[in-house]
Amino acid sequence: MTVGREVHLASRPAGRAGADNFAVVEVPVPEPGPGQLLVRNVVMSVDPYMRGRMNDVKSYVPPFRVGAVLDGGAVGEVVATGAGTRRQRGELVLHGLGWREYAVVDDASARPVDPELAPPSAYLGALGMPGLTAYAGLVDVAGLKPGETVFVSGAAGAVGSLAGQIAKLRGAARVVGSAGSAAKVQRLYELGFDAAFDYHDGPVRESLAAAAPDGIDVYFDNVGADHLEAALSALRVHGRVAMCGAIAQYDTDEPPAAPRNLASAIGKRLTLRGFLVSDHDHLRDEFVAEVGGWLRGGELRYDETVVDGLENAPAAFLGLLRGDNLGKMLVRL
Amino acid sequence: MTVGREVHLASRPAGRAGADNFAVVEVPVPEPGPGQLLVRNVVMSVDPYMRGRMNDVKSYVPPFRVGAVLDGGAVGEVVATGAGTRRQRGELVLHGLGWREYAVVDDASARPVDPELAPPSAYLGALGMPGLTAYAGLVDVAGLKPGETVFVSGAAGAVGSLAGQIAKLRGAARVVGSAGSAAKVQRLYELGFDAAFDYHDGPVRESLAAAAPDGIDVYFDNVGADHLEAALSALRVHGRVAMCGAIAQYDTDEPPAAPRNLASAIGKRLTLRGFLVSDHDHLRDEFVAEVGGWLRGGELRYDETVVDGLENAPAAFLGLLRGDNLGKMLVRL
Repeated sequence: MTVGREVHLASRPAGRAGADNFAVVEVPVPEPGPGQLLVRNVVMSVDPYMRGRMNDVKSYVPPFRVGAVLDGGAVGEVVATGAGTRRQRGELVLHGLGWREYAVVDDASARPVDPELAPPSAYLGALGMPGLTAYAGLVDVAGLKPGETVFVSGAAGAVGSLAGQIAKLRGAARVVGSAGSAAKVQRLYELGFDAAFDYHDGPVRESLAAAAPDGIDVYFDNVGADHLEAALSALRVHGRVAMCGAIAQYDTDEPPAAPRNLASAIGKRLTLRGFLVSDHDHLRDEFVAEVGGWLRGGELRYDETVVDGLENAPAAFLGLLRGDNLGKMLVRL
Repeated sequence: MTVGREVHLASRPAGRAGADNFAVVEVPVPEPGPGQLLVRNVVMSVDPYMRGRMNDVKSYVPPFRVGAVLDGGAVGEVVATGAGTRRQRGELVLHGLGWREYAVVDDASARPVDPELAPPSAYLGALGMPGLTAYAGLVDVAGLKPGETVFVSGAAGAVGSLAGQIAKLRGAARVVGSAGSAAKVQRLYELGFDAAFDYHDGPVRESLAAAAPDGIDVYFDNVGADHLEAALSALRVHGRVAMCGAIAQYDTDEPPAAPRNLASAIGKRLTLRGFLVSDHDHLRDEFVAEVGGWLRGGELRYDETVVDGLENAPAAFLGLLRGDNLGKMLVRL
C-alpha cells in the first residue's frame, strides 16, 4: 500500500497562526473510483484567504475542520485513472486538493494544464486564480479607464504585482504600489510601477500623498486597515475601490482597524466593492487571451517564492502571512 | 429703503454647533437688476448637510463664510422683477438663497412652483431635494429590486421617511426603519414600514437582527457609525449600501466611529456607494411623474416640522441635528 503525506489542521489559532496549528500526517493512498483521477501533486498554492478558513466562522467558503486535511489550489500529474475519465495518465491537471502529496480528484473538475504554454506553477499564479483576481478587480469591479491613476497595496504579492502591471498595460496613466520592504519596492519599479513605497517608512497616508500628489482614481485593496483609510483620503471624485483582501487583519484576533474617513465616500461619490474571483468566471477566456499574450510577449512578468517539501507548507503559509514572499508563494512537492 | 433680515455665520463651531454660531442681521433690500428677481421668501429649508458647511473644510460645496449670510433651499414670492425675466410678480419660485427674508435671485436659476399641484413646502421636501435624494438612492445607487429587504436609518427624517415608503411602493418585500424616539417609531408603522426600532433601545446590530432576521439586501444610510456597522453585518451576499448621509458624526469633532467589519464586504461581495443628489438630475422627470403620482393618490405621505420666523431658523437647524423633527424641518417666514 502506497503511503502519502497530507497537512491537517491540528487546532484553530488563538490570535496569530503558528506551526502548532498544523500537523503532517501519513495516510494510505486510495485507488481512484470511476470518473476519478489519482493525482500526485507537484506544486501547491498557499494563499492569504486560507487564514480565514482556519477560524470557525461562517464565510464564503466553509472553515477548515480540525483534524482534517486542508485544501487549496494545486497542480499534479495523473498517476492512475478510474473508468471513463477524459484525462489520462501522465497529464498535468489543476485542481482544488492541495496540502497533500496524493489527491483523488473528480475528472470532471480537473482542468488541463499545458506545460508547453507556461510552467505548471503559472497555473496557480499569473494564469490562475491570482491573475484572474487581478484582472477581474480592475476590469469588472473597478472599471478602470485609460488615463487613470491606480494605487495597489500588497503590490509585491501574487495578486498585487499582477494588478499593477495589468493596470499599466490597460492604459493607466500612473500606478503606485505599496509593499513591506525596500527590496520589494525596488522590484516594483523594475516591474514598471511609476512609484512605490515601503509602508513601514511612515504613515501610509503621507507616503501615498507623496507618490500620488494629484490623488488616485482606483484603489486595488489587498491590505485594508490604514491602507484603505489612506486610499479613501487620496481618492478623487467618483473614485472606486476594488476590495480584494484585508491581509492586515487576517492573522490576529484584535478588533480590526477601520477607516475613520469612510463618510468621505458620500461627498466624493466613491464606490467600494468587495469581490471574489469566483463571481467573475465569465472573464476567463478574455483573461487567458489577454494576459496569456502579455506573458508570452514578455510584457507581464511574475515572481515566485518557492519552498520545497510538503512538510514545509505550513512554514510557507506562515511566511506568506508575514510577507516573506515576493510574488506567488508556492510549495514544490 | 426696505430692510430685511438674514442669518449670518457668526463663528465656526468647536465641537457641537450652538446658537452663538449664528447672528440675525438687518440689511437693506436691494433692487433686482436685469434678469433678476426680488423674492420674499415664504418657507426655507434646514438640512443636515449644512452642518458640514459650517466647518472650514473643502467638500463638494464650499464652506459657509464667517460673517456672511448662509444659503440653502427656499420658496418665495416674486415681489419685483428686473428687465427681461421669465418669472412675474406674484409667482412662487424655488431657489437656493434661503436663510434670509428677501433674496435677489437670478431669473434663469429660479424654478417655478405650482401651488395647485402641491403646497410650496413640498417643493423643499417630497417633491424636492429630499424626495429626489430618496428616489435616486434607491433606484440609481442601490439598484433596488422587487422582493428585496431594505433598511433605512434616520427613517423618520425627510429623506428617510420617503426612502422607506418609495422602497415599498417599488416592490420591496420588507422595509425596516430606525429612528430616535418611540413616537417616531410609531409613525414609521403608520407610514407602512414593516418593522421599526428606536436606536436608543439597544445595540443597533441586535435591533436590526431582530427586525430583519433573514438579513437585508439594501441599506439606505443616513446615519453612518454604528448603524452602518450593523447594516454591514446584516447585509446578505451582493447587498448594496446607498451612502446618503452620516448625521451621527456631523455635529462633533470627535474622531468618527468606523465600521470595524468593513472587510466583510469582500466575502459578501457588497457594494457601498456614496452619492449626492446633484449627480442624479437625469432622474428628475421620472421622479416627478412617479412620486408626484403617489402623492396625489395618497400612497406616499410626508411629515413636516415647521418653525415660525427667521429668527428661529438657527434653533430649527440645531433641533434638526438633535433629531427634534418628524419629517422635513422647515422655517416659515
